[in-house]
Amino acid sequence: MIGGGEGAYIGGIHRFAARLDNQYDLVAGAFDVNAERGHAFAAANYIAPDRSYDSYQAMAAGEAGRPDGVDVIAICTPNFTHYPIAKAFLEAGIDVICEKPLTATLGEAIALNDLAEKTGRFVGVTYTYSGYPMIQEARAMVARGDLGEIRVVQVEYPLEWMATGIELEGNAQAAWRTDPKKNGRGGSIGDIGTHAYHLAGYVTGLKAESIAADLATFVPGRALDDNAHVMIRYQGGARGLLWSSQVAIGQSNGLRLRVFGAKGSLVWSQEHPNELTFTPLFGAPATIKRGREDLTEATHARVRTPPGHPEGYIEAFANLYSGFAEAIRARAAGRQPGAAAEGIPTAYDGLKGVAFVDAVVDCHEAGALAWTTPKFA
Amino acid sequence: MIGGGEGAYIGGIHRFAARLDNQYDLVAGAFDVNAERGHAFAAANYIAPDRSYDSYQAMAAGEAGRPDGVDVIAICTPNFTHYPIAKAFLEAGIDVICEKPLTATLGEAIALNDLAEKTGRFVGVTYTYSGYPMIQEARAMVARGDLGEIRVVQVEYPLEWMATGIELEGNAQAAWRTDPKKNGRGGSIGDIGTHAYHLAGYVTGLKAESIAADLATFVPGRALDDNAHVMIRYQGGARGLLWSSQVAIGQSNGLRLRVFGAKGSLVWSQEHPNELTFTPLFGAPATIKRGREDLTEATHARVRTPPGHPEGYIEAFANLYSGFAEAIRARAAGRQPGAAAEGIPTAYDGLKGVAFVDAVVDCHEAGALAWTTPKFA
Amino acid sequence: MIGGGEGAYIGGIHRFAARLDNQYDLVAGAFDVNAERGHAFAAANYIAPDRSYDSYQAMAAGEAGRPDGVDVIAICTPNFTHYPIAKAFLEAGIDVICEKPLTATLGEAIALNDLAEKTGRFVGVTYTYSGYPMIQEARAMVARGDLGEIRVVQVEYPLEWMATGIELEGNAQAAWRTDPKKNGRGGSIGDIGTHAYHLAGYVTGLKAESIAADLATFVPGRALDDNAHVMIRYQGGARGLLWSSQVAIGQSNGLRLRVFGAKGSLVWSQEHPNELTFTPLFGAPATIKRGREDLTEATHARVRTPPGHPEGYIEAFANLYSGFAEAIRARAAGRQPGAAAEGIPTAYDGLKGVAFVDAVVDCHEAGALAWTTPKFA
Amino acid sequence: MIGGGEGAYIGGIHRFAARLDNQYDLVAGAFDVNAERGHAFAAANYIAPDRSYDSYQAMAAGEAGRPDGVDVIAICTPNFTHYPIAKAFLEAGIDVICEKPLTATLGEAIALNDLAEKTGRFVGVTYTYSGYPMIQEARAMVARGDLGEIRVVQVEYPLEWMATGIELEGNAQAAWRTDPKKNGRGGSIGDIGTHAYHLAGYVTGLKAESIAADLATFVPGRALDDNAHVMIRYQGGARGLLWSSQVAIGQSNGLRLRVFGAKGSLVWSQEHPNELTFTPLFGAPATIKRGREDLTEATHARVRTPPGHPEGYIEAFANLYSGFAEAIRARAAGRQPGAAAEGIPTAYDGLKGVAFVDAVVDCHEAGALAWTTPKFA
Repeated sequence: MIGGGEGAYIGGIHRFAARLDNQYDLVAGAFDVNAERGHAFAAANYIAPDRSYDSYQAMAAGEAGRPDGVDVIAICTPNFTHYPIAKAFLEAGIDVICEKPLTATLGEAIALNDLAEKTGRFVGVTYTYSGYPMIQEARAMVARGDLGEIRVVQVEYPLEWMATGIELEGNAQAAWRTDPKKNGRGGSIGDIGTHAYHLAGYVTGLKAESIAADLATFVPGRALDDNAHVMIRYQGGARGLLWSSQVAIGQSNGLRLRVFGAKGSLVWSQEHPNELTFTPLFGAPATIKRGREDLTEATHARVRTPPGHPEGYIEAFANLYSGFAEAIRARAAGRQPGAAAEGIPTAYDGLKGVAFVDAVVDCHEAGALAWTTPKFA
Repeated sequence: MIGGGEGAYIGGIHRFAARLDNQYDLVAGAFDVNAERGHAFAAANYIAPDRSYDSYQAMAAGEAGRPDGVDVIAICTPNFTHYPIAKAFLEAGIDVICEKPLTATLGEAIALNDLAEKTGRFVGVTYTYSGYPMIQEARAMVARGDLGEIRVVQVEYPLEWMATGIELEGNAQAAWRTDPKKNGRGGSIGDIGTHAYHLAGYVTGLKAESIAADLATFVPGRALDDNAHVMIRYQGGARGLLWSSQVAIGQSNGLRLRVFGAKGSLVWSQEHPNELTFTPLFGAPATIKRGREDLTEATHARVRTPPGHPEGYIEAFANLYSGFAEAIRARAAGRQPGAAAEGIPTAYDGLKGVAFVDAVVDCHEAGALAWTTPKFA
Repeated sequence: MIGGGEGAYIGGIHRFAARLDNQYDLVAGAFDVNAERGHAFAAANYIAPDRSYDSYQAMAAGEAGRPDGVDVIAICTPNFTHYPIAKAFLEAGIDVICEKPLTATLGEAIALNDLAEKTGRFVGVTYTYSGYPMIQEARAMVARGDLGEIRVVQVEYPLEWMATGIELEGNAQAAWRTDPKKNGRGGSIGDIGTHAYHLAGYVTGLKAESIAADLATFVPGRALDDNAHVMIRYQGGARGLLWSSQVAIGQSNGLRLRVFGAKGSLVWSQEHPNELTFTPLFGAPATIKRGREDLTEATHARVRTPPGHPEGYIEAFANLYSGFAEAIRARAAGRQPGAAAEGIPTAYDGLKGVAFVDAVVDCHEAGALAWTTPKFA
Repeated sequence: MIGGGEGAYIGGIHRFAARLDNQYDLVAGAFDVNAERGHAFAAANYIAPDRSYDSYQAMAAGEAGRPDGVDVIAICTPNFTHYPIAKAFLEAGIDVICEKPLTATLGEAIALNDLAEKTGRFVGVTYTYSGYPMIQEARAMVARGDLGEIRVVQVEYPLEWMATGIELEGNAQAAWRTDPKKNGRGGSIGDIGTHAYHLAGYVTGLKAESIAADLATFVPGRALDDNAHVMIRYQGGARGLLWSSQVAIGQSNGLRLRVFGAKGSLVWSQEHPNELTFTPLFGAPATIKRGREDLTEATHARVRTPPGHPEGYIEAFANLYSGFAEAIRARAAGRQPGAAAEGIPTAYDGLKGVAFVDAVVDCHEAGALAWTTPKFA
């Protein structure tokens, strides 16, 4: 693991996720830019001293040189460091699990995607919310035509935690997210809009044709957008609306997806992830519960408990980790990956996300509003 | 009453609304373009034969000439007839309650608003949803600063009943709504988008500076939009997103409003109208219930039952009617209207709605997307 | 109308309900035990002075003697006066609509039911909640076997408004409800438990075989129960649980019914009355919405607006009034009543409710707990 | 681990829970009464062959004799085996984590509780639902007086999975649960009623004074109750109502708790465990979210993610495991246990649960209904 040490949030989540299904052992890391703090953290987490590294460069070299070197690393650092770290490990022959957005710039994303192809190594991207079982079920429902041709996609991801200028009050998480150098060009649209955009595409299979966006910055002194409205035209004619916000008071982690087709609709909300509502044309809304026996195989592969025993965010994250493990093992064994790896987000998904953010910011920064085409879709 | 006879939907609602608070007697009408059917309907509704008219023109003349002529009429006909009917009665010295949208064209709306000013007569517009008590409370909360400066407004009005081409299968309600000559230029945006737009402005007090819109028609053969996405920039910097749809399977009458300010947010949904959720900055969401004693006077004036005894759509409609009655009586008495009439929608509100639809369709029909300014806001 | 004047709550509801469907005119009344206040109220409500009476006795005599005398009266007074008032009007040949509980004592209830039979006059009882359309639908679903044999009935009716001793602080509504002489033997169980008991029987068609009850009084100084727990054994083997409470903080008017059978279940909540949830055996819960075209005829007869346009408490009350009107007209015309009158609560339903309260209080007051059989079921 | 091998449900949950917080390593087990199957399971789960035992007796002896023997074992077997297994390990000096109900008979529960005291070993009982963070918060709210004196406790635990006679169709989980010899005297009341009873006592701190119960068996041929209604009188005057059911169609895992006091109320539902609703006297209901910074220390100790990132059943289970680990370590270190161990269920809690079931069945089997006092409270 790179980053994710003391005081980090997402690093802990990666560790829960890696442990849950007993598919990973955490054996090495460069946990902190401050090497001393990193070593202290390693010691507290049962890491052998010789595998707690001063830097990611040292770790890439060290682990590549060991017969028992790590199979895969997790990058849990601010966005601007994703690319150099991933590059170092891929070139050292080590697979990579990377936080989203894949990189801070589109150029880096293109380069990283190329490198993944060239090296043949695995690059998984933690679009967390695609790990939820009912999202897998929603995807299957669309794919098998339960909704008919898709007409309208509504996706939103509002948050409240940055509703005031906490980046000026010592909140490190908010500080790098509002710094264009560390975060990239997109504020809310890069941080959470990318999740929403991926989720909509993941479930519907639709690709964006063009977008039109209106970014706003409400908190005084903030350098990046903290609210984004985006109209989307998908290839084939479906229309989408995407809202991301870091200033939406009352919204803890309000990712929500609604898909309307010619024959039915579905609604899913991240804060109540264990069910989705499906309504057939002129029929009664039905609540489909995670864990039912009649769900698809790829859904079952992401379920641990029966209906009514809620699973949550950590389990969704663990589903990604287990999917990544399955993909890595299948490649090693020269076999097709199983259901657990179906649809897992990889480098190209990460590239699409960065291209979306780039198109949104381009659209907004242009003098006049215009339909803008993401470079990768 | 003009229109609203046998087989009509909204006419019956107007009658429920007029009766509920015992402020109106229905004593005359031209209930149907087919005079014979109109007279039959009148007879069944206890209307004296000499006050069941063959046409609105006959009624305007007849009632204007009676010492006990009607004080006010209700226009419950398709959009393209609103203007000539309203004109006839205003010129006959009779007040008017008119369905939305106020008229089918912007020119008519301007003319009608001018006529209302010139004649000094009352023109009420049935933006039904502004009659709900908790909408009044929401408006008061914004006005007194509970939410701080408004940043983001999300309003949506999705419906499912026109998800297929029912206008081709004999559904009269759908037929005129999809006929540009009878309905005006805006499909979903004119029929229900106007409600959503009014509601957002009513609660927040914000005026639109410019809009950018993407209209779509999903049902084959339909002449007008059945789905509209609109980004709004309000004067002063707030941003809005508006969605209207007639093809949103699973949505019965899904009008919903969310307002986010610097100090708090509120959420209200028309299908559960007896409560709203208010969340203060970093606080716990609270459910505010219609009927509580600590709500504002204008809310109390729209409440008939204590919390937990649900009121609904008919009561909201009745609140408009009682507000209109209060406005008419106050004018007659030369006094200020009371709380029941606070904020009731009148001709200028209707004009703003038509101007909004016009701007949306202009924006969409222009070759290139551009921020477009409604002519009245 | 008897009672229901200035300051009364339920009288106003009766008037809304009577007006809504245009089936009644309010033309006479004895609105207050204080005759002067009653006359003032009558004048403000457009009642002719000669039909505003000093007392119910005067009204019974006066109206019976007029050729245009009232067809039916509504009793909106405290419980202990129901019986003498109803008796006076029935004996004067005038039909009666009476608030629940039917009477304050079981003896009175028996006598009133006998009198209704003997005189052949109509006695309707305002078990308000049975007027909701989705309750009618629930009843039809059980009757046609959608749930299979009924196993378990859970009904509850919690309120918060009497959570403190407001009867000692000048609240007149609470004062008579906590006075055994005016209210009868049952506190919460008489006031609201009767509603819950009726609703459970109305929907399921089940009759109680025996009950076991635990009453409690939590507010210091209160003379009657303010919380009741009742276990019910229904004839045929189904089991029920009933909870009524006047001290349940957070519960505005929380009547809720859940019915579980061998083939399915249904859930309905009064505060969101426009839908019910039906779950078939091992199937997905479905939301059935009021106003759908595929509901039963008796449900349609109680619906005014399409799905998504909420109806509420006043509409439910109006459904009872319209059902009573249909029953009265059908009797006058010598025909079978239509769907609007199907299942409306009459004197015997009122008697059953009083018998239930009596059994509950008997059970509680007995030295030892024992299964107790209501005298009428 | 004893039991919990191939095909078992709860064993897998124990393993997820033990792994999540990195406090346990699974190193030995007797996973199956069929030793061969047990060994196969052990091999697949990375257990050294010499620590995969043929029987629990062999494992108690083997592990007690090793310097690196296990610290604690988890008992995941049917109820009737809990006592002999626990006894074997406690007498071998090994701590025990045991599924609920603690034992199949009251005599065994008394003996086991005595043995725990006598040996000074740790016995944790997996009353899973008490591991949820918001249950901890609810407990703290009651303890610090937010609700005032408790008046009414409503707890229910309905399930649907045994709504038909699946025990006759090869469902092993249902088979032992409906066999009095393997399960004990209580059907639904023993299996899930014990969870509900513990939860109510855990949150409120109340102890039962007496109970009155009505058990029913709805599925033909079933030997134990599958539905239980229980009225509870708590010491000090509060009243409770408990419902458990295995035949409640539509209910996946519907544990729900509502507590009403003189100053406020709270509502919590297991299927949406990340929030609770608190309503102060005559105030607005507030949604308190797991993860907020202003919650109590014992709640924080059970939280891994911020508000809006749902945690669920596995995390609740892991909280028990981490609490048990804290208790065991604190005892070894001779220090007070930290917040993670506050309130964790131990042998006496298990004994109380068995005593409750015993009282319920005694009450039901007595010829006449009577208030019955559990032997331990």
